[in-house]
Amino acid sequence: MKYASFTAADGSATWGVIEEGRAFDLGPSGAGLAPSLRAAVEQGLFGAVTAGQYQAAPARPEDGIGFLPAITDPGKIICIGVNYRTHQEESGKTGQTAPTVFTRFADTQMGHRAPAVMPASTTKFDYEGEMALVIGREAWHVAEEEAWDYIAGYGAYNDFSVRDWQKAASQWIPGKNFPSTGAFGPYLVPAADLGGVNRLTLETRVNGETRQKASVADLYFPIPQLIAYVTGFTRLSPGDVIVTGTPGGVGLFWGEGGLLADGDVVEVEITGLGTLANTVERER
Amino acid sequence: MKYASFTAADGSATWGVIEEGRAFDLGPSGAGLAPSLRAAVEQGLFGAVTAGQYQAAPARPEDGIGFLPAITDPGKIICIGVNYRTHQEESGKTGQTAPTVFTRFADTQMGHRAPAVMPASTTKFDYEGEMALVIGREAWHVAEEEAWDYIAGYGAYNDFSVRDWQKAASQWIPGKNFPSTGAFGPYLVPAADLGGVNRLTLETRVNGETRQKASVADLYFPIPQLIAYVTGFTRLSPGDVIVTGTPGGVGLFWGEGGLLADGDVVEVEITGLGTLANTVERER
Repeated sequence: MKYASFTAADGSATWGVIEEGRAFDLGPSGAGLAPSLRAAVEQGLFGAVTAGQYQAAPARPEDGIGFLPAITDPGKIICIGVNYRTHQEESGKTGQTAPTVFTRFADTQMGHRAPAVMPASTTKFDYEGEMALVIGREAWHVAEEEAWDYIAGYGAYNDFSVRDWQKAASQWIPGKNFPSTGAFGPYLVPAADLGGVNRLTLETRVNGETRQKASVADLYFPIPQLIAYVTGFTRLSPGDVIVTGTPGGVGLFWGEGGLLADGDVVEVEITGLGTLANTVERER
Repeated sequence: MKYASFTAADGSATWGVIEEGRAFDLGPSGAGLAPSLRAAVEQGLFGAVTAGQYQAAPARPEDGIGFLPAITDPGKIICIGVNYRTHQEESGKTGQTAPTVFTRFADTQMGHRAPAVMPASTTKFDYEGEMALVIGREAWHVAEEEAWDYIAGYGAYNDFSVRDWQKAASQWIPGKNFPSTGAFGPYLVPAADLGGVNRLTLETRVNGETRQKASVADLYFPIPQLIAYVTGFTRLSPGDVIVTGTPGGVGLFWGEGGLLADGDVVEVEITGLGTLANTVERER
């Protein structure tokens, strides 16, 4: 089953199940099962909603809703850098011995179909298609063998990057934290519904041209290692997000015309997780 | 006047004014002026409490209270790296052309007199004495000339760092985000009460030995430039914290015995802001 966060007819934030082109409202403006998708994860409702429950809820056509970031208010967004060999090679960052970890603030996020805002202060705006996972339980010092049990679900992510601000100093935070640059969605799919993630393919397209294509099985530090490493220094809570890294093919290393321009349409498609589409909008 | 966040007699979190060795409770367990010091900043109460107001509030001896981080729940903690020439030189990171920015989660913080927890997984635990500022107004694209108007107040900070985790990959987040490593306090002093900050001296001592000593006037990127740069990529809100950087003399470059060990007492003293003291406690 696919879940999403979206705006209700009155513009307020809600969440629900998306099935057969309809968005069933399970949030405050609908069935009222939980105030947000994050709360649904916290309450163990996410992945446990029955057909009877959602079919009784008010519904609208999926085409008519405004998608919000799959989790609108994560307490922590942990991003992993250079975690596919192809991206390590194109960026000259081979020989990693530990995951590269940086963070996003929650206010950098936007949903499917929302504009990706290219700041007025950059000439180097880029995409990074990634798979994100959402934590389902309090997690601290998790062993690799048990890591899968801590995952509630998965979604597509586009870690839009402002390369000049990212590389102005050694730490990347500025280039990764402009408003409306962390696209997350359209859906969040329960881990149990998806089966394994290693058979999933991630593909990023710019105006229809394929730029990135990789199997999630090719993650350099696989998901259990990421969860063990991250919970080795910080406690994670339900609704927290780990964005697992981008494969080779980012705009910066694509050559002429690789970076993004006003009006470009960027899509991140992952098997079973749908297609996350955002149009670049230059800040004026 | 000095403000602080601390625990009330019943163990609940509160805040108030510290004067002549007494802690006047202005929070939920006392006069009830605002739920937290962050809320007091948001409401414009911070810096505006009158003697009549606090003297009427219930008080306890300052020695008997448990200090909490000066702001317990900042929305954003922005840390600046290598921002004194002496630290740039000892670490070999000269020639900075833009501020180095990283982040802490709020759950890494602790107050004055609380233990600085040295993780079981490190052999390289270090101190970084710094001056922190707290934002007083919504701030976005702030001009350097107006930056001072956005500061509510100042406090001492110790950015305890787990060097092996910090340097395991290019990004420092893991080494800067262990629980109980971001010491903030004891006090938060209104900018208006302090006058200028350039006359302030910062001194860090380990078991009484002076390790770091610098004038805040020696910040490589001065405070107005930091505020302009940071609000160039992220919106800041009242209660958000900028930790401005550490001078030369950190343990890593001190030579034999420079790093911290179980039981070490680390003090950060800044003119007018008091002395922040924490004892290193090795995690078992």
